[in-house]
Amino acid sequence: MIKTAFVAVGDELLKGKMDTNSTYLYAKLKNYGIPISLKIIVGDNKKNLVDVIRYLEGRVGLVVVSGGLGPTLDDITRFAAAEAVGVKLCENKEVLANLERRFAEYGKIMPDSNKVQALIPETATLFDNPIGTAPGFLLTFKETKFFFFPGVPSEFKIMVDRYFLPIIADYSQERVHELQVVFAAVAESFLADKLADFANHLEENEKIGIYPSPGIVKVILEARSQKRLAKLKETLEKVFENLPVSYNGASLEEVIGDLLRNRSETLAGAESCTGGMVGEMITSVPGSSDYFLGSAVTYSNEAKVRLLGVTRDALTKFGAVSKEVVVEMAIGAKKIYASDHAFAISGIAGPGGSTPEKPVGLVHFALATDSQVIHKSARFPGERDSVRKQAAIFAMELLRRYLLRVDYPLIVSDGG
Amino acid sequence: MIKTAFVAVGDELLKGKMDTNSTYLYAKLKNYGIPISLKIIVGDNKKNLVDVIRYLEGRVGLVVVSGGLGPTLDDITRFAAAEAVGVKLCENKEVLANLERRFAEYGKIMPDSNKVQALIPETATLFDNPIGTAPGFLLTFKETKFFFFPGVPSEFKIMVDRYFLPIIADYSQERVHELQVVFAAVAESFLADKLADFANHLEENEKIGIYPSPGIVKVILEARSQKRLAKLKETLEKVFENLPVSYNGASLEEVIGDLLRNRSETLAGAESCTGGMVGEMITSVPGSSDYFLGSAVTYSNEAKVRLLGVTRDALTKFGAVSKEVVVEMAIGAKKIYASDHAFAISGIAGPGGSTPEKPVGLVHFALATDSQVIHKSARFPGERDSVRKQAAIFAMELLRRYLLRVDYPLIVSDGG
Repeated sequence: MIKTAFVAVGDELLKGKMDTNSTYLYAKLKNYGIPISLKIIVGDNKKNLVDVIRYLEGRVGLVVVSGGLGPTLDDITRFAAAEAVGVKLCENKEVLANLERRFAEYGKIMPDSNKVQALIPETATLFDNPIGTAPGFLLTFKETKFFFFPGVPSEFKIMVDRYFLPIIADYSQERVHELQVVFAAVAESFLADKLADFANHLEENEKIGIYPSPGIVKVILEARSQKRLAKLKETLEKVFENLPVSYNGASLEEVIGDLLRNRSETLAGAESCTGGMVGEMITSVPGSSDYFLGSAVTYSNEAKVRLLGVTRDALTKFGAVSKEVVVEMAIGAKKIYASDHAFAISGIAGPGGSTPEKPVGLVHFALATDSQVIHKSARFPGERDSVRKQAAIFAMELLRRYLLRVDYPLIVSDGG
Repeated sequence: MIKTAFVAVGDELLKGKMDTNSTYLYAKLKNYGIPISLKIIVGDNKKNLVDVIRYLEGRVGLVVVSGGLGPTLDDITRFAAAEAVGVKLCENKEVLANLERRFAEYGKIMPDSNKVQALIPETATLFDNPIGTAPGFLLTFKETKFFFFPGVPSEFKIMVDRYFLPIIADYSQERVHELQVVFAAVAESFLADKLADFANHLEENEKIGIYPSPGIVKVILEARSQKRLAKLKETLEKVFENLPVSYNGASLEEVIGDLLRNRSETLAGAESCTGGMVGEMITSVPGSSDYFLGSAVTYSNEAKVRLLGVTRDALTKFGAVSKEVVVEMAIGAKKIYASDHAFAISGIAGPGGSTPEKPVGLVHFALATDSQVIHKSARFPGERDSVRKQAAIFAMELLRRYLLRVDYPLIVSDGG
């Protein structure tokens, strides 16, 4: 049987509104080593909710249901709960008195529509709502416990803390410990191959997941004790050494920041096709002014000449997306910002601007340092947004690998 | 029977990661008057997914399943699909050849782990993936059609558009027509007040929604006919004139692009606290090289002096976040890029760097044109990310209002 499921009730959650209650519940349950194994969103539709409650009975131990306990016509949760389980709804005198007192406190008379909130399934255990009008309740349906809480996030949170968490202590297993390993400019399939053997040696309740996004792949490892996690981390470190950006979930821009700060070195850059994305990412880290001087976004050829001193000769002969120009850009950026390191990016993000020799996704990179200028080029799959994101990350990863002397080849992800 | 359900597969979606695919699907289906009636999130757990597929069979007409089609061990969707329906998985030669060709194009040999992506349930209809390695497929299970698509958002979108939407035309009811009115640098409460009277005159199945995000507020209007929508739009235009960025959902960066292109004018800028965000946003529009020259990200004071010619005197006397410095930045940017217009932004994004006189959220703006330099300042609520986003939008909106001579005051949103 599945341990825990979450059900949210509300049309708005089917229309793009984000449900934050399950995120809260997940964060709380994680501390007890209990995952949420299933999440279901139902509209304000009694029949569908009845059906979902019956589906979950016997399949799940604990179900938390959020929302649909308000006073309006579309609040169908109490009716669905009673119908699914086959019990009556009874008006609870105490709840009714509480409701009336609540309204009186604000100098108001309770509208008749609110009376419905005093209807509770007859076999339910009542949960008082300390900050709102909708009480919650626990309804046991054969083998499954259903916790019904109001959907307003502040009320949901307080009621989960007060009524749900104390009960789940009984269900708690050993705590789950998690390790996040972040990779940049690697292929998902490369990691999968590298990890296949490692994954075979995991114990029964340990898990490994691979989560790619443009330019970045996260590997998340779960174990039941800190000690065991430390051991697994050691094994991973033997496999990957300093290839990962971090073994603790830190982002590439944070890691670069720490590296530069520790070395008291500064960074600047020159961006064409990324249009400022690298600068934006690096400065998303508070305190980045300690090491980041700026980035000359030179989208036009003329700007490359005027700001960075790129030669018209190189632009004419090789074009803006070329080794020659991107090297001149990096050297120019290092000079005008007087930085220790300077990156440069020039590429074809698409959809327009490609030629047979220079297809969409082709990007040239340079990194100018005090001793040398490194050049790389890559062709990224995917659409404009994805190409730009991958290029921005590639440029930052090129710097990180240079600073740490990581000698794996930079790889373009296969996913895009 | 329920018309449409959505299933997302992935542990990360049970752990607080937002699922954006269902939002995309909802927006598309809305145009056909088809709601999503049920949304289920399953982890990377074959047994649970098999169970959910069997639950949905006979209850729902069309099910869209997103995710779990990758090459790694935790990608269980194809196995669950075949098992639930009771069919075999067969290696599809064509898919295998496509995969190998894809890798070869990027000069790589396909890792063995990717072979699993060629396994397709034997009765399924195959959907080629134009931008990624995971193909999708349609599997009919008695009365229910299951569409399986990759979970990577860019791939999901393209495959929904190409393979799912043509089929749902058959299921379409009366079409819903939608108008998106985009506002920048306005307060949500100002719009709510302005729209209160308008909302009272809507007909029964017409709807208006106000959706704020940092710096931007979208007003979405729904009606049942184009004619009626046109009439409602006319009324809105009388209320708001040229205050909205667009009456057709176009983004601020797109609208600015069209304005500049039509006038054959160019734009450049200088960014401090936004770190390149404005450049990144403007260049997210394909073809922006027609009017955008670049943006000098000058995060350090020294860079402001070296690149933009900001005077040390102004920096010492007034500080980097001041009217005097931001005006010099804009004039400097206009000069070095030789642009028709140049914006400049300097502010305190936080959490550090504030003083009693210059609190977190304070941002100065300037816009230099051929005839004048405009200065504004604002204090934005919220955290670092939100302050930066609001500042980037404010700078672009300042330009739009200048170009169109919009004479509403620029307002900082109340939400943050």
